[in-house]
Formats: sequence, structure tokens, C-alpha cells
Amino acid sequence: MTLDIRVNQDRLWSTMMEMGAIGALPQGGCCRAALSPDDKAGRDLFVRWSREAGCEVSFDQVGNVYARRPGRNPARNAVATGSHLDTQPHGGKFDGIYGVLAGLEVVRSLNDAGVQTEAPIDVIVWTNEEGVRFSPPLGGSSAFAQTVDVATVQSAVTLEGTTVLQDLQSIGYLGSEVPGSRRLDCFVEAHIEQGPILEAEGLTIGIVTQIQGIRWSKVLLTGMDSHAGTTPMNRRRDALLGAAEMITTLNRIAVAEDGFARLTVGRIEVEPNSGATIPGKVAFICDLRHPSAATLDSLETRMQAAIREIAARGGLEVEIQRLIDKPPVHFSGALLDTVRAATAQCGYSNMDMLSGAGHDAMNVAKVAPTAMIFVPCRNGLSHNEAEFATPEHLASGAHVLLHTLLARAGRA
Amino acid sequence: MTLDIRVNQDRLWSTMMEMGAIGALPQGGCCRAALSPDDKAGRDLFVRWSREAGCEVSFDQVGNVYARRPGRNPARNAVATGSHLDTQPHGGKFDGIYGVLAGLEVVRSLNDAGVQTEAPIDVIVWTNEEGVRFSPPLGGSSAFAQTVDVATVQSAVTLEGTTVLQDLQSIGYLGSEVPGSRRLDCFVEAHIEQGPILEAEGLTIGIVTQIQGIRWSKVLLTGMDSHAGTTPMNRRRDALLGAAEMITTLNRIAVAEDGFARLTVGRIEVEPNSGATIPGKVAFICDLRHPSAATLDSLETRMQAAIREIAARGGLEVEIQRLIDKPPVHFSGALLDTVRAATAQCGYSNMDMLSGAGHDAMNVAKVAPTAMIFVPCRNGLSHNEAEFATPEHLASGAHVLLHTLLARAGRA
Repeated sequence: MTLDIRVNQDRLWSTMMEMGAIGALPQGGCCRAALSPDDKAGRDLFVRWSREAGCEVSFDQVGNVYARRPGRNPARNAVATGSHLDTQPHGGKFDGIYGVLAGLEVVRSLNDAGVQTEAPIDVIVWTNEEGVRFSPPLGGSSAFAQTVDVATVQSAVTLEGTTVLQDLQSIGYLGSEVPGSRRLDCFVEAHIEQGPILEAEGLTIGIVTQIQGIRWSKVLLTGMDSHAGTTPMNRRRDALLGAAEMITTLNRIAVAEDGFARLTVGRIEVEPNSGATIPGKVAFICDLRHPSAATLDSLETRMQAAIREIAARGGLEVEIQRLIDKPPVHFSGALLDTVRAATAQCGYSNMDMLSGAGHDAMNVAKVAPTAMIFVPCRNGLSHNEAEFATPEHLASGAHVLLHTLLARAGRA
Repeated sequence: MTLDIRVNQDRLWSTMMEMGAIGALPQGGCCRAALSPDDKAGRDLFVRWSREAGCEVSFDQVGNVYARRPGRNPARNAVATGSHLDTQPHGGKFDGIYGVLAGLEVVRSLNDAGVQTEAPIDVIVWTNEEGVRFSPPLGGSSAFAQTVDVATVQSAVTLEGTTVLQDLQSIGYLGSEVPGSRRLDCFVEAHIEQGPILEAEGLTIGIVTQIQGIRWSKVLLTGMDSHAGTTPMNRRRDALLGAAEMITTLNRIAVAEDGFARLTVGRIEVEPNSGATIPGKVAFICDLRHPSAATLDSLETRMQAAIREIAARGGLEVEIQRLIDKPPVHFSGALLDTVRAATAQCGYSNMDMLSGAGHDAMNVAKVAPTAMIFVPCRNGLSHNEAEFATPEHLASGAHVLLHTLLARAGRA
């Protein structure tokens, strides 16, 4: 491993800012829901940049984008990197985008240095990591790992009532390649930490050894619509009151656990949602995370019992649907050693760490050796317009990525 | 008072069912938000029926509709009745509609009997009783009572972003009459009870002596959007968790009161309302009701203290806005005696009672002697598609209304 090749910090930063102008929000963030017009604009820009950098670009049946820098030996499986370009509704310029554009910066830097690799290098944009406009989140990489059917992803209905297949056709990102048919030598995803640890420790690089498990449940409550003024308190079947008791109780259970448990109710739908009517229907999503599958089981058992007890007490019918179940993932030991070696040679301070967020890498890990590289972000914030990472930290992560991919692909 | 004139039960029922077909919902209810295309269709039908019954129809500057059956003496103030035609999003066929169409049935029955009255009879449709598409609710009768400015009602912005003035113009219900400039001899509103008491007691007529006070507050909470997976439980500023604690606490305070207090949170808005993001903003509406103004003050003081305490504990900024403050209303003693006499002469079982719901009558009571006549409804349900009253009960209420109005207007 040699350090004669370096990424270009200013170019990476200006590339990030140009992508961040698409779907820009007033307080510095971005809104690019998957397969929306703004997501199409972001994809188009990435495709143009990739072709200008000499890549061959192709799509698969769920809209994952593959930008390939050819290797000397076309028979070799690609050394892959990438992430996602879609964002949360009030998202930032960095989450996901950094992993894609750090990959592009690696390609550009290899071009600048005139270096050919033995294996091809693929920069991949996974479809719908965030899951804002349609479910499931991480759908593109799930299809690649063949844990979700192509038909399931294509038939998902968006918030606007279109199907994913219709959207892929209309924005021009429906390809013929079967997701997962392409074999990867490995997949390395660079990402902002989205948590406060690297910043608090004053470190530059996080070497991610594990992603915590994620479970999403949808809780549907049915009570009875009735009049706010005439219905005695003891004759109500108030679905929002039941949901409120559940949210506080689930939070209490998570807080009382071991410090690793994370429980969030971020989405709730209330019907008829009118001030003078006791709500008869509520649906909300529980996002539960923990690094241990056994603890997830235990938490979920207790939480579901609490939900059913509160529903029964409030005269509510309850249905609990499983939306997502991503077990904890351990990354590849050999590939982690390559990342550690690259980090050490670059001379960056670092630590091994756990990812609190889910990432496309957790899906790809099912079909290829996988690793992640974290860089610090300000105040640990993400899924927020104030999300920020410094140009220096972004370049450092891209530099580690460059030397990891180069070590894996081999100089021709 | 003589009982030679009777309302036509079948005609009243079929008129109710024909109106209920406009904005019909799959489970038997209605959705006709004020000034929506369906509300226009309902108004148009009422106007056509009224003109066919010989009434002069006019509108005022906030879209209140007046259908006048002329009296022998045009100098007399009108004896008035009516209610509203707009509904909740999942509303029924009876709430409000009954009061308007019972008034129409009185006019038709007087026509059938060839009876002229000394004073004119006005059947009034008040605009936007429900307050679903825009605020304030009870806006038409508030403007009539001159407790809300015409300009305030006209400039209100609807859920679709139009103003009320634009809507009134586009549906053709903007008149030139100043609300409240028309003097009324009295106003008698027939209505389904919307509560369980008459049904439980097996009685036909409720003579409403009082309407409980209603206060609406909007609570706005600001926390911080952040990532569900990476943000430790003790670093969150979760606006939905705060709202959930408030909803359960406010409910507990109301339940612990004297059996008359009603507290409902029926409307909540969450931002960004996405499963993987801790919500940074929540707004919800508290609907608080009680027959005593002093108890309302006491409840509200304790509830606001609880809201501020929970907000402070959760790191949330809080703002509490007053949306509605309708003090308890006592109806006119002399007019109540006329209703009681009519009920007795008709031979219907009855009781004096309190109204748990707000009604346009509470506004009109500020400018004219006012009373209300309740009939039973099934299971006390309203603001619900399953809302139902029997043809017999509806006709009984209309019959009491007929003889009350006739006694007040005088036979020519």
C-alpha cells in the first residue's frame, strides 16, 4: 500500500455541495424522496459525473445504479463502494450522499493518478434507503441481497399512489439487470457517523464492526369516532389516547434497558384528525434497535404485551404488523483488517465502533464481504437539516476508502 | 295552541335521506366540509326546496343562508330556526342537518295547512359550524352575534389554501347583508342529542336549558429532528413523546374532575412524521368543556402547568395559543316555557337537560331569546358515520318545533 495517490478535498466538497443544491431546504438541508423528481435530478447528476469520469453506467430492475470503472481483468468481480442519494423529508446533505460521492472521488483520483486496477471498481447508488415515500426502506440493497423480491419492491405504492415500477419507468431508471446477479468482490460504504461518539472522542475515522438490529412494527388501533363534547370520559374508545399511553410506556421500557436500546415513534396517522372528534383510528410505527438479537426479542415481547394491555384497558382493537426485521450484522474480519491497515497508513486517529443506524451495507453483507468507514458529524446530528461534516473529515474518509479499494482491487 | 297542524314524518325522513346522499360515505355517514363542493351541493338543494316551499332566500357576507316564509306583518322580527349543513370528515346524516330540515318541514307543514303567521319565519343555515376546513368553528353564527368580525371569517385560510371569501364567491354564497343586521324575535334549534341520556332514560324530547363552555387551545412543541438509530435516549428532544405524555396527563386531570369535564385531543400534526426520525415538531388541539366557567379556569390552569412541566423535562419549547373560548350559555326562560308547553301539549315524555356539544344557538343566544330541542340518537353517537335517529323521534322534535314557532309567530 502506497500513499502516492490522494483524494482531492476541495473537489469532493464542491461535488457534495452541488448535489446538495438539488431538493435544497431553507435551513441548509435536503429533501429528495426516493424516485421523486428531485431524486431523479440527483441521479442524473451522478450519472453524468460518472460518465465524464469514464465509468460505464447501468441500472437494475429496482433502479439501483452501477457506475463501473473498468479493471484490467474484466473477469474479476468488482470491488464496490457506494450508498444512497435519497434523503429524509428534513434530511441533510451528507447522509448517504457522502458514500456515493466519496466513491466518485476515488474514481476521479485514480483517473488523476493514471492508475489502472486489476478488478473493476463499482460505485453503487442503492434505491430508497430512507423509505420515506414507500416501503420497505433499504429496498434497493434488500433486492440486491435477494431478501426482498423484485416484484415486492416494484409493486410498492408510494405516498402519491403510484407504484415503484411506474416511477422507475417515468424517471428512466428501470434496468433489465436482476438485482444480485452481479457478484461483488467486496463492498465498502463510507458514511457520516450520525452519532456523537467520534466527535466526543476527537477521532477522525470509525471502523464499523457491527450494525445493530432494527425492527419496525406498525401498530393499528381501532376505537370509536365520537363527539368530544357529549361523550362521557368513561364511555370513550379514544385511539389517540391509547397511542399516547403506548408511546410513553414503550419509551420507558427502552430507557430502562441497558443504554443500547433505541425506541422511536416517528410516524403516526390519526383519523379523522379533527379537533371536536374523539379519534377512532390511529396507526403508528415503532422503530426498535439493539445490537443483540436476544435483547431485541426480549424488548419486543415486553413492548407488545404493554401495547395489548393498554389497548384492552382502553377498549381498543389492536393489530401489530411486522414491517422490517433486520438482525444485527457483523462485518467481514478480513476486509476490516484492510480498512484498519489503510487507516493506519494514512495516519488517522480511529476506533472500532458500532453503527446505530441501518445502512445498505447490512444487506450487502449477506452476499459479499462488507465493511463501513465512519467520519465524525457535528453534534451527532443527522436526519436533520443541520447535519454537517467538515471538508477535512470527509476527505479523510474518502482517502481511507481509496486505499482500501485499491488494496482490494490491485494495481494493474 | 292547537294540534290541528302536524308535521309529515315520511316527508321529513325522505328529505333527510336525500340530503344525506350528498357527500355520502361508505358506512352510511357524510363528509361535507364547509364551502366544499359537497357543501355547495347541499346548500343548493336546501335553497331549491325552500324556494319551492315559497320562501325568499338570501345570504349574508359570511354565507349564512336565510329562507324566509313571509308573515302577514312584515314589520315583525322573524321567528327563526335552523342549524348547519356542514359535517365532520366522518360525520353523520343528522348532526346539524336535522335542525335545518326540521325547519323546512315546519314551513311545508304550515303550507299544507294553509296557515299564515303574523311574524315571518326564517330557516337559517349557519356557515361552518364544524370548523373542519377552516377556523373558527361556529363562524357563521359567531359573525351573526358579532363576536367575530366578518373580515376575520372571510380571510380565514382553508386546508386547501383558499380563503373563505374566495370560496364564498366561487360557490355563489357571498351575500351583501351584514351578519346580525337582521333582528330575530327568537331562535329555536332542533338537534339530535349527540349523547346517551335521552336514549338511556327512554324519553322523546330534551329541553336544553344550558350549553357547557368550550375552550380550544393549540399546543405547539418544538424539539429537535434527529436520527432514530444513533441518538441515545437521553440526548433526544422528542416532540411526539412530549405530546404523548401531555395527552395522557391531560386526560387524567379531566377524568379526576367532577364527571362533567370533557377533554379531547382529536387533532395532531407531527413533523417530519417519518419512521426513522425523532419528530422535532408537534402541534395538537385540546378541546376542553365544562358547564362552569370557574371550573374551566381551574382545569385550564392545571393543564397548562402540566404541559409546561412536561415540555421543560423533555427539552421542548412550548407555545399555547387560544383558538376558541365559548363561555357556558343559559337559554331564555320565557322561550323555554313555550317549548315546554308545546312538548306537553304534544304529549311527549321529556326532561330538561344540558348540551355537551357546542351549537350555533350558543352564539345566537347573545342577540335573541334562544332555546334548543333535543331528540334521542342511537348509542349517543355522533361525529361518526353510525350516527342515527329514528324517523319517529325526528318527527316528534319537528312537531314540538312547529308548535313552538307557531306560538311565537302567532296565527294571522
